[in-house]
Amino acid sequence: MARMTQRRKIHRFHLEGSGAEYPVRFKEDVLAAEEPLEIRIGGRSFAVTMRTPGDDFDLVAGFLVSEGIISSPSELVSLRFCAGDAGGEQTYNVVEAQLRPDVPMPDTMRHVYTSSSCGICGTDSIDSVRKTLPFDPAQDTLQIPVDVLAGLPERLREAQAVFEKTGGVHAAGLFKVDGASPELLCLREDVGRHNAVDKVVGWALRQNLLPLSGTVLQVSGRASFELVQKAAMAGIPVLSAVSAPSSLAADLAVETGLTLVGFSRGHSLNVYAGRERLGCPQKVAREETYARL
Amino acid sequence: MARMTQRRKIHRFHLEGSGAEYPVRFKEDVLAAEEPLEIRIGGRSFAVTMRTPGDDFDLVAGFLVSEGIISSPSELVSLRFCAGDAGGEQTYNVVEAQLRPDVPMPDTMRHVYTSSSCGICGTDSIDSVRKTLPFDPAQDTLQIPVDVLAGLPERLREAQAVFEKTGGVHAAGLFKVDGASPELLCLREDVGRHNAVDKVVGWALRQNLLPLSGTVLQVSGRASFELVQKAAMAGIPVLSAVSAPSSLAADLAVETGLTLVGFSRGHSLNVYAGRERLGCPQKVAREETYARL
Repeated sequence: MARMTQRRKIHRFHLEGSGAEYPVRFKEDVLAAEEPLEIRIGGRSFAVTMRTPGDDFDLVAGFLVSEGIISSPSELVSLRFCAGDAGGEQTYNVVEAQLRPDVPMPDTMRHVYTSSSCGICGTDSIDSVRKTLPFDPAQDTLQIPVDVLAGLPERLREAQAVFEKTGGVHAAGLFKVDGASPELLCLREDVGRHNAVDKVVGWALRQNLLPLSGTVLQVSGRASFELVQKAAMAGIPVLSAVSAPSSLAADLAVETGLTLVGFSRGHSLNVYAGRERLGCPQKVAREETYARL
Repeated sequence: MARMTQRRKIHRFHLEGSGAEYPVRFKEDVLAAEEPLEIRIGGRSFAVTMRTPGDDFDLVAGFLVSEGIISSPSELVSLRFCAGDAGGEQTYNVVEAQLRPDVPMPDTMRHVYTSSSCGICGTDSIDSVRKTLPFDPAQDTLQIPVDVLAGLPERLREAQAVFEKTGGVHAAGLFKVDGASPELLCLREDVGRHNAVDKVVGWALRQNLLPLSGTVLQVSGRASFELVQKAAMAGIPVLSAVSAPSSLAADLAVETGLTLVGFSRGHSLNVYAGRERLGCPQKVAREETYARL
């Protein structure tokens, strides 16, 4: 993972003791690498994202799925790093995607709403995801015990390699739920949480695993609208985040039939949508409507 | 802050004791609101960002500064929420900015690199920021004692209102450094860290405070390239983050003369660029080049 991290000289201050005694240390530190990636489709620039280099083909493939442009590997003819410029330099920061000729070319501008009126709102955003949804996560009959689900953040953290070094990247882990111990199918790290998820989804597309039935996507940090969108477009039935979801993330999960979990912290978790996929003893299930702490 | 948060029914599970005894609680929770905001310039759609509603005029003004489109309030003729659509509904999610006629209209697509070759890389990103920089943060002679700087994350957290309720928003706080106790000039919260910073910068533009000489911008979470860009465009000399910076964030800080601090955790902090603005006793400063823990 040479390009995923970079070394820098830094000053580290420890503020124990009085001001006159602060130990200061001049050392090298490892930072998560961040570089621009330009995504081109059929020779046209489509998007530029700031990402941690590595798994770039997965990132581009997953981005195309998340944006509703493709949903099967057969729609993607090829991915390649653009050749270097006149000076012959190859930066590995421009990926060209060639789509099957019958796949409609997307608009260059993302998130353009069809309505030209001033009525843009959360409902429009949800509708535009629903319209392009290639799979139906609502139909997924996955069941997962609540204690198994609560154990996934720890497994994610244990498997994170770049975070270990830098403390500075987000992670997305795809778990196949099958019996008591879910299998980690794919883990990706990136300075951008959305990139980490795109890398996982793109990996799955290229493995011909879409829709991702029976899986849980565990992410570090918060759950935004965009993350629920990406999970839904890939047919993932359960999205679990370590921190808080936004209101629109919860709304989109309800509307697309996803289970959305937040504040998953090992000893507790919150369910914002799709409670029915979480198994727990029947005796407890009956107690739900009481406000028992 | 009615629109900044929303109430939702959730299930909360506590996983103490054995599986048969997990207490489960059906309750209401407060979520950080997230809705799309469309930014229009001269009638043309320029960008859509997912943000927490509130301080939207600040957000748009700050976004225009961050993108290098304007740098003084005189360039911004007006900001207004678009009138409702035919049905008369006003969503407060579309803001129209009218610029002074002599301000060049920006390209509709952000982050379009002028070079059409395949040489896109971090250096290009840095160059494109440097070219549009309206102020020169490198010239800022601000000095701040390291222990004062280390106290800012705690002050930011104490002042956060929405986080208190939801645990789900990022914050950006602008501090004027003047004597031992910096003054908090402006605090903004948002589901998106970049939006929180744009809201702060836009507030400053509208108060005619740019360039923000002698200030520190303290942010929750990580420091990406984008955050350093926004700070530099507003002439802020010191950016301090609670978590890790990326490699490109550190590079851009070096190139634009910003002081970049990461992992600011009260008892320690790391300096990635611009160490000279941090005051600490001379005796210690002499010890820098030794690897003393």
